[in-house]
Amino acid sequence: MGEMTERWEERKLQAWNRMWEDLHIGYLDEDILDVLVEIFLRPGLYPKSSCSGRITVIDSEYPWAKEDTMTIFKKHAPVTVEEVDAVARKPFAHRLWLSAQGPIYHVYAQDVDAASELLAAAREAGFKHSGVMVLGSMPLVELRTGIRGDLLLATRRHRILDGDALREAVAVVNDILAQAKERNRRLLAALRRRRPPRLWGPAVEKARELGIL
Amino acid sequence: MGEMTERWEERKLQAWNRMWEDLHIGYLDEDILDVLVEIFLRPGLYPKSSCSGRITVIDSEYPWAKEDTMTIFKKHAPVTVEEVDAVARKPFAHRLWLSAQGPIYHVYAQDVDAASELLAAAREAGFKHSGVMVLGSMPLVELRTGIRGDLLLATRRHRILDGDALREAVAVVNDILAQAKERNRRLLAALRRRRPPRLWGPAVEKARELGIL
Repeated sequence: MGEMTERWEERKLQAWNRMWEDLHIGYLDEDILDVLVEIFLRPGLYPKSSCSGRITVIDSEYPWAKEDTMTIFKKHAPVTVEEVDAVARKPFAHRLWLSAQGPIYHVYAQDVDAASELLAAAREAGFKHSGVMVLGSMPLVELRTGIRGDLLLATRRHRILDGDALREAVAVVNDILAQAKERNRRLLAALRRRRPPRLWGPAVEKARELGIL
Repeated sequence: MGEMTERWEERKLQAWNRMWEDLHIGYLDEDILDVLVEIFLRPGLYPKSSCSGRITVIDSEYPWAKEDTMTIFKKHAPVTVEEVDAVARKPFAHRLWLSAQGPIYHVYAQDVDAASELLAAAREAGFKHSGVMVLGSMPLVELRTGIRGDLLLATRRHRILDGDALREAVAVVNDILAQAKERNRRLLAALRRRRPPRLWGPAVEKARELGIL
């Protein structure tokens, strides 16, 4: 086993152990555990910092939050009118955005071939904004859909979404979130169809437990 | 000159001629002509289907329009309350979204090194969702920012943005568009800082005319 391969295995095993720790602590977005394990099954890939899709309320001039501090509400499941209304009634500094975001996966690849194979599956599953973000000895692949919606909830002068409009808006972001979650199912299916003959040992047992193998 | 290089030169020249045709017809988004010429100056890159940022109104269940037919209004410059209001008063089929989108560039690279160099400049300029979309003999690079905003303008049951709320919303999308346009300036500056010693002949004269060389 060459030095590069050894280093790859070491990092992959670290990421694998970290995932189970995160699950234990409650950090991990459990909705995509099966997708993450399916990615781990490939010897040449491992995922990092992934999200299955979420609804947030952001206090920011613009709907792209630069810091976590701007995200004043976050949920990986459907929201209620009451939840959003409660957040909107608190004081805020800039503008409030009610956002729904599609899934994002960051995956390290051992080489360009492994990255290409993943991109092909991603495209099949409707992750149309996917690409290799960092080239080099360990390409970093981002899988991303076009799924999103950033609804202006309030400015400091004016509460934009209230009453009927808020009810409609909450239905819309929940609907977008459902689309997002479904895309994860499509990714899982596309990856399973392209499963390689040789699998990564440590993930095999867990994949059986999850019923994907 | 090898066959691969010859084919690259031929395609690049085609794209170059096409750009000036598009400009003549009025298809080209003139705001980014200097950025496009700056990309053409590199022997190993040429841009295709790029957009400097725009404001649209989309008639669709979701703010990501799959077909051009869903885009019922499009402008690469600030919009007025009256323009948006007029669009919102016409009948529509699904939901109306008032969207602002950041710049997008699609650039072909002659090889992985040329793609990497472009990605480095893009990251410097705040195009943080950039990546190589298609690997292979002619990598396709997408440069993309996180700049966006999709405001729910109306559902079939309810006009969400009207009166004061619409005035606020128009100010916000114009503000987002200004951010988008500024990012093009940053990209131009980042590319100029990283200009290679050898330039692509046909673009040199045009670059001088545009004052970027």
